Amino acid sequence: MSKVSTNPPSGFRDFLPQEAAARLELVDTISRVYRAHGFQTIGLPFLENLSTLQGKGGGSDNEKLIFKVMKRGEDFQRSLEAKAELADMGLRFDLTLPLARYCAKFREQLPKPFKVFQIGPVWRADRPQKGRFREFYQCDVDIIGSKEIGAEVDCISAILEVFEAVGMRGVEVHLSERRLLAALGKDLKISDSTWSKVLVSLDKLDKLPAEKVFEEVGALITPELPDPNAALASLREAFSGPQAGEEPWSRLDAEALASVLRVKTLLERLGHSSIRFNPTMIRGQDYYTGTIFEFRYPDLSGSLGGGGRYNRLMEVFGAPETPAVGGSIGFERLALLLEEQKKLSTQTAAPQIFVPVFSEDTRAAAFQLAGDLRKLNLRVDIFPDASVKFGKQLGYAEDRKIPYSLILGPEELAKRQVKVKNMAERTEEIVAFEDR
Amino acid sequence: MSKVSTNPPSGFRDFLPQEAAARLELVDTISRVYRAHGFQTIGLPFLENLSTLQGKGGGSDNEKLIFKVMKRGEDFQRSLEAKAELADMGLRFDLTLPLARYCAKFREQLPKPFKVFQIGPVWRADRPQKGRFREFYQCDVDIIGSKEIGAEVDCISAILEVFEAVGMRGVEVHLSERRLLAALGKDLKISDSTWSKVLVSLDKLDKLPAEKVFEEVGALITPELPDPNAALASLREAFSGPQAGEEPWSRLDAEALASVLRVKTLLERLGHSSIRFNPTMIRGQDYYTGTIFEFRYPDLSGSLGGGGRYNRLMEVFGAPETPAVGGSIGFERLALLLEEQKKLSTQTAAPQIFVPVFSEDTRAAAFQLAGDLRKLNLRVDIFPDASVKFGKQLGYAEDRKIPYSLILGPEELAKRQVKVKNMAERTEEIVAFEDR
Repeated sequence: MSKVSTNPPSGFRDFLPQEAAARLELVDTISRVYRAHGFQTIGLPFLENLSTLQGKGGGSDNEKLIFKVMKRGEDFQRSLEAKAELADMGLRFDLTLPLARYCAKFREQLPKPFKVFQIGPVWRADRPQKGRFREFYQCDVDIIGSKEIGAEVDCISAILEVFEAVGMRGVEVHLSERRLLAALGKDLKISDSTWSKVLVSLDKLDKLPAEKVFEEVGALITPELPDPNAALASLREAFSGPQAGEEPWSRLDAEALASVLRVKTLLERLGHSSIRFNPTMIRGQDYYTGTIFEFRYPDLSGSLGGGGRYNRLMEVFGAPETPAVGGSIGFERLALLLEEQKKLSTQTAAPQIFVPVFSEDTRAAAFQLAGDLRKLNLRVDIFPDASVKFGKQLGYAEDRKIPYSLILGPEELAKRQVKVKNMAERTEEIVAFEDR
Repeated sequence: MSKVSTNPPSGFRDFLPQEAAARLELVDTISRVYRAHGFQTIGLPFLENLSTLQGKGGGSDNEKLIFKVMKRGEDFQRSLEAKAELADMGLRFDLTLPLARYCAKFREQLPKPFKVFQIGPVWRADRPQKGRFREFYQCDVDIIGSKEIGAEVDCISAILEVFEAVGMRGVEVHLSERRLLAALGKDLKISDSTWSKVLVSLDKLDKLPAEKVFEEVGALITPELPDPNAALASLREAFSGPQAGEEPWSRLDAEALASVLRVKTLLERLGHSSIRFNPTMIRGQDYYTGTIFEFRYPDLSGSLGGGGRYNRLMEVFGAPETPAVGGSIGFERLALLLEEQKKLSTQTAAPQIFVPVFSEDTRAAAFQLAGDLRKLNLRVDIFPDASVKFGKQLGYAEDRKIPYSLILGPEELAKRQVKVKNMAERTEEIVAFEDR
């Protein structure tokens, strides 16, 4: 038989039992906090029709990263011959677009507003590199059908409480309003299409030297402005100078500014510190229409998550304009940070008792003992092979850090006793069956 | 904007909040029972290299059902021009093959034996039909590195306890040994390759009329046997006559028979009734090497799950021969049965308290109240929109079956009180803030 590689695909990961346990526990915590905030979950497939994933019709960055699933059988052959699209489905690249499809489909049946959370994998055909994977988890909360800032505050609070529940202190919330940047572009008389490109460039300010970024911006705006240098100076001042405060933005769009500041005030009144108005924050998604937010952690480049209001996404699926807001936790970054800070638990659901098997003759009794203990809600591991040496069986229990072993040899069985061994302290105690 | 369909791909499902909650709760129960039996979980990617999925080199039925993921960029173009394979990965079609890869890769680091469970989705490009989906969950327990029947008994007991934990009574365990059927084929002097096809035919006896099946079998064996009618008569007797008991099988392979009967005896001694030796049971997978088992439920055609011993699968990945046994619960069938029997709970993690929002002015106080109650470990839902009429807000809570609403209007706020409304009984009570 020829040997097949034991590696997962590039950019995909295998997790050892302890890592897997820690990740599951983190998922459980996030799920518990979201539920405690009144959010409920739904079930969506992991695959979508390609037309759904490409539905925004916009060639956004994530759309370029879709893992496509090939058509099958005759359908595939026909497409191959016709030089047509060879795929009919794709792996979802986020949880928001499938949610919009779902809410458009079931809008008559869902509560209004619909407070929903989702925790699950998404896939992006990105170039694999340190800390960037092709399969990773997202943890979203969304409120569909609410137009007031209560929805923003509810989503942001739920996410902040997750950070609190896992022991992450010092997370900052950066707030802005998508309309403020749009107003700035208009004010500088830059066309919408050029402005989008300018924002993509400005978004690189935390990764590239400022000189390089503004050179790029200059090249973009020069062709269409009578005085590009004045515009460039304004942008330099707004994006790389000291923050100019709220006033200039109020002049640009007073309503948008007031709205985002109300979110800030309410979060502060609820006792959340470190809420910052950050008008130059640019979040990539083109579907945002109002408030946008990001969770940042000191010394961590990039963010721990974020989100915003997207009031028009459901129109893609034929639904009327539906107010919506949502936020997401970057699960992989959070898990990595918690691991570095040794805040991930791995032993939560580990066995409490180990039952070795003395011999073939005592096997049934050992199984019975294990079963009886499980009825008392204990987690009990039993060794399957009687022919493995007894010391080796106990070594297995030690390696798994199981605190107690219950030994049932022929002698104990005859006397209707069991020997209880404390594995850490290496002490033993005899307990009669009747004492159980 | 052109409208995109709101449907998931054919054979894929969306679940409404209550269905999703019930499914998650079932997953939690299965996971809890498996853990209580000492099994731990791991993390595997949902995609595998195509070479891994096709690694058994055998063109088994499931391999034909792989959803293939297309290569990308230049890699795709090159393959297209060379008329080579256009896919490099595939969605996993079961949890066993990826587990074998994983155990081969980490065999030095894993406990020995390694008791592992997995609950997650798998994908098969089957023709969608009633009750058959292209994305569905499997719930596997496996013991890798144990050669004795203790492993079979441990896996089967864990699965039986799941059925018990969810309130399914009357599940039967059918037991056999893969070597018995092999011995029968040899005894009838049917070649191995023909015998495989004969078994595929015989496996349809519960779906097709016996006459049709034996006609097929006759056509298969006639070319290679001097007296096909005698062989056909033997097969008729074994597969459609009254069960002949253990004796004829003992003559064919006494060791295999003794082994499976020991599994039966031990399960019976542990108090499990309805354990049947069923030597004509055929389980499709070609990787089984010993004990095979199936869970059946009266009046349900097909099975609720099953499994068996597969001592040679890890060799595909270059590992030495490694004894292994595993079983799986058919999650979708179990969920469907439980739903029909109204045994699925949907309200477990639903909110306990609802906080409507009286007006913009009381919003902060309402959020504070909700936050305080959550600190007492209560699940509290808050309404985001103050402009929505109060009666409508309470209607939302009624629809979600939230038992209590806590009302905090300007009057209550001034008096430092809250009005507690029992939603079912429509009674109200005033509670002072100090009483909290």
